[in-house]
Amino acid sequence: MKGQFAGRMATMQRSFIREILKVAQDPHVISFAGGLPNPDYFPVEPLRAAADKVLAQKGANALQYAPTLGNAELRQFIADRYKTTCGLDVPADDILITNGSQQGLELVAKILIDPGDHVILESPSYLGGIQACSLFQPRFVTVPLLADGPDTAVLAQHAVHPQAKLFYALPNFQNPTGITYSASKREEVAAILHENELFFIEDDPYRELRFMGEDLPPITVYGRTRAFLLGSFSKIVAPGFRMGWIVAQPELMDKLIIAKQASDLHSNYVSQLIIAQYLQDNDLDAHIATIREVYGRQRALMVAMIEELFPANVQYTLPEGGMFLWLTLPEGMSAMQLFETAVKRNVVFVPGDPFHVDGTGRNTLRLNFSNTDAAEIETGMTRLAEVLRESLKRNP
Amino acid sequence: MKGQFAGRMATMQRSFIREILKVAQDPHVISFAGGLPNPDYFPVEPLRAAADKVLAQKGANALQYAPTLGNAELRQFIADRYKTTCGLDVPADDILITNGSQQGLELVAKILIDPGDHVILESPSYLGGIQACSLFQPRFVTVPLLADGPDTAVLAQHAVHPQAKLFYALPNFQNPTGITYSASKREEVAAILHENELFFIEDDPYRELRFMGEDLPPITVYGRTRAFLLGSFSKIVAPGFRMGWIVAQPELMDKLIIAKQASDLHSNYVSQLIIAQYLQDNDLDAHIATIREVYGRQRALMVAMIEELFPANVQYTLPEGGMFLWLTLPEGMSAMQLFETAVKRNVVFVPGDPFHVDGTGRNTLRLNFSNTDAAEIETGMTRLAEVLRESLKRNP
Repeated sequence: MKGQFAGRMATMQRSFIREILKVAQDPHVISFAGGLPNPDYFPVEPLRAAADKVLAQKGANALQYAPTLGNAELRQFIADRYKTTCGLDVPADDILITNGSQQGLELVAKILIDPGDHVILESPSYLGGIQACSLFQPRFVTVPLLADGPDTAVLAQHAVHPQAKLFYALPNFQNPTGITYSASKREEVAAILHENELFFIEDDPYRELRFMGEDLPPITVYGRTRAFLLGSFSKIVAPGFRMGWIVAQPELMDKLIIAKQASDLHSNYVSQLIIAQYLQDNDLDAHIATIREVYGRQRALMVAMIEELFPANVQYTLPEGGMFLWLTLPEGMSAMQLFETAVKRNVVFVPGDPFHVDGTGRNTLRLNFSNTDAAEIETGMTRLAEVLRESLKRNP
Repeated sequence: MKGQFAGRMATMQRSFIREILKVAQDPHVISFAGGLPNPDYFPVEPLRAAADKVLAQKGANALQYAPTLGNAELRQFIADRYKTTCGLDVPADDILITNGSQQGLELVAKILIDPGDHVILESPSYLGGIQACSLFQPRFVTVPLLADGPDTAVLAQHAVHPQAKLFYALPNFQNPTGITYSASKREEVAAILHENELFFIEDDPYRELRFMGEDLPPITVYGRTRAFLLGSFSKIVAPGFRMGWIVAQPELMDKLIIAKQASDLHSNYVSQLIIAQYLQDNDLDAHIATIREVYGRQRALMVAMIEELFPANVQYTLPEGGMFLWLTLPEGMSAMQLFETAVKRNVVFVPGDPFHVDGTGRNTLRLNFSNTDAAEIETGMTRLAEVLRESLKRNP
């Protein structure tokens, strides 16, 4: 229609999380809201050295237009790391550098989803994934998340539908719940996907942030025909570079390249070289070990505060890695209302509503434990416990 | 459909230009093909100093997630520059930082185009713009480009159609033709757009690269209600950062922000700060004056070579800025066939076909003069003249 926006924009809204982040910028506010890594552990000086080396040694070559797929050395590093850390054997040319995982989600959604296609989501699911898919007007259907992964009976039911197009999942330390798929659930999911010719987006930005338990292989290990495995440097190096990647086999990659060219030609090349240089000159494993140790400690403190201070009828997950805890308040209680009260007490979180596409989850909320130190966790969780107890007293 | 890509991908192809660029990497090949700025004039050392300063002074703050709109100082710089260079008065909050102009094109296309909407293109038009729009399945209609801009009678005809949604134009040193709209054509176009409530994408990456004639205001100056003005640092600083912007009024910006969040949250923040620092510490006007002088000289040499060596029945444009010349071969001659012969003689260009959406333009081609020095222009144009003369001898 003349003078009108496209139909796909009709139901799209600004990210609620990014709106909350504006509130969280007030220095008096303790924020458990964002999905921000802890900046105290960004490798600032090593990155500064890497940037200087790249511009000194590569000069103008670092600054020109560059190949769509991305820098070859960086892609080889990613391929090698999959091989050594989880036995996934992929050639570097099956890896496309993207602007963070978010662009990976958008590119895959763009090449797959026709209006009305069924997109199967974990419930709850990551808001950024929901938004990227929403642009292309699918019908969302949901699979409940249990403590060890999705309810596979429900997944199997959704998968047989002729309109079923793809399953979007975060099997490691899921955003928002922190839940991790068990080994057997991974195999079950792979079998259902294969049997029903479903595409699969395996969104895996937190894989390296495991602070307890055993590493498990990506589900993509069980079959790559229709799989898109998404990774990111945001959580293991720094998010300001907006640098992630998609692993996909050639037939899928061919479409991704077309979509990437139409979207922005290629990702920031200077930054690709800086990250590649950083990875070459530094011990990533040692760096990640530090982050794991810190996040594990912060998560332990947050759980201890919940156990000590929160009402017994508030449930919580016990993530083995990542950056998030998930709380379920007593039935009938509204996390959005709790949020309004909490803001006034200078503590924020993300209410569960935006992670649900079906209007459920009003009594749930997400807590981030990566971007606050011990003192902030103690103060913030004490404030939150008070707000919770008062709310429960008013609405028992 | 199960296991199938989305319908929007059916007719999408890889960028022909980016495929040609692979051929052009052979050091024996002289390339007039790419749209690459001359890397000899990238401000490598000033950018190196800026990068070092940013990481030394801002540290972790440069590396964290950042606002969707982009860095405030960088946006203010862009706003101020519009005001001083062309009298366009826009607040910094009407500017969104994008991954180059290409992402600007894709975001605007995404928020505007429903399948079947009419997108009015200059004929020929920029391949990247055609690709970004194609993803959203419009019907393309075309307006011939004359020496001083579009045939406004044809534009007016297309504009009244009820399905007409937007006009996509590059009024300065157009890619691919090098043509610039006259002052009167700009006003005429603005009036037609306004009268018919058309959206307008003013793609203006070359504006600062004028080496002769008088600066003219962006068409957006005549009305911002439905205008998206796109700019880029790729041609005045360096393209490897993938850093551009969109100017749009708040109602349009609101939708752009939603689309940007779903696409990649925000553009690379470190690079935004590096460019902002570079702009603060250096004289951009002096830098651009150098580029203008060099490109003007290279364009003059290329034209002189055409006049001296090319058959008289080959027509060419005389751009006042930018990076491209446009050749029209005698009727019936195929630029694609000429390309095949030229590659064997180690000189390449872009045949006109991919810039046309209606199968016309087979006897046209684009020459880039920014990314070759004088010696290369002399050798390359001599080779091209030989190939041309031989082809004309075979098919007179």
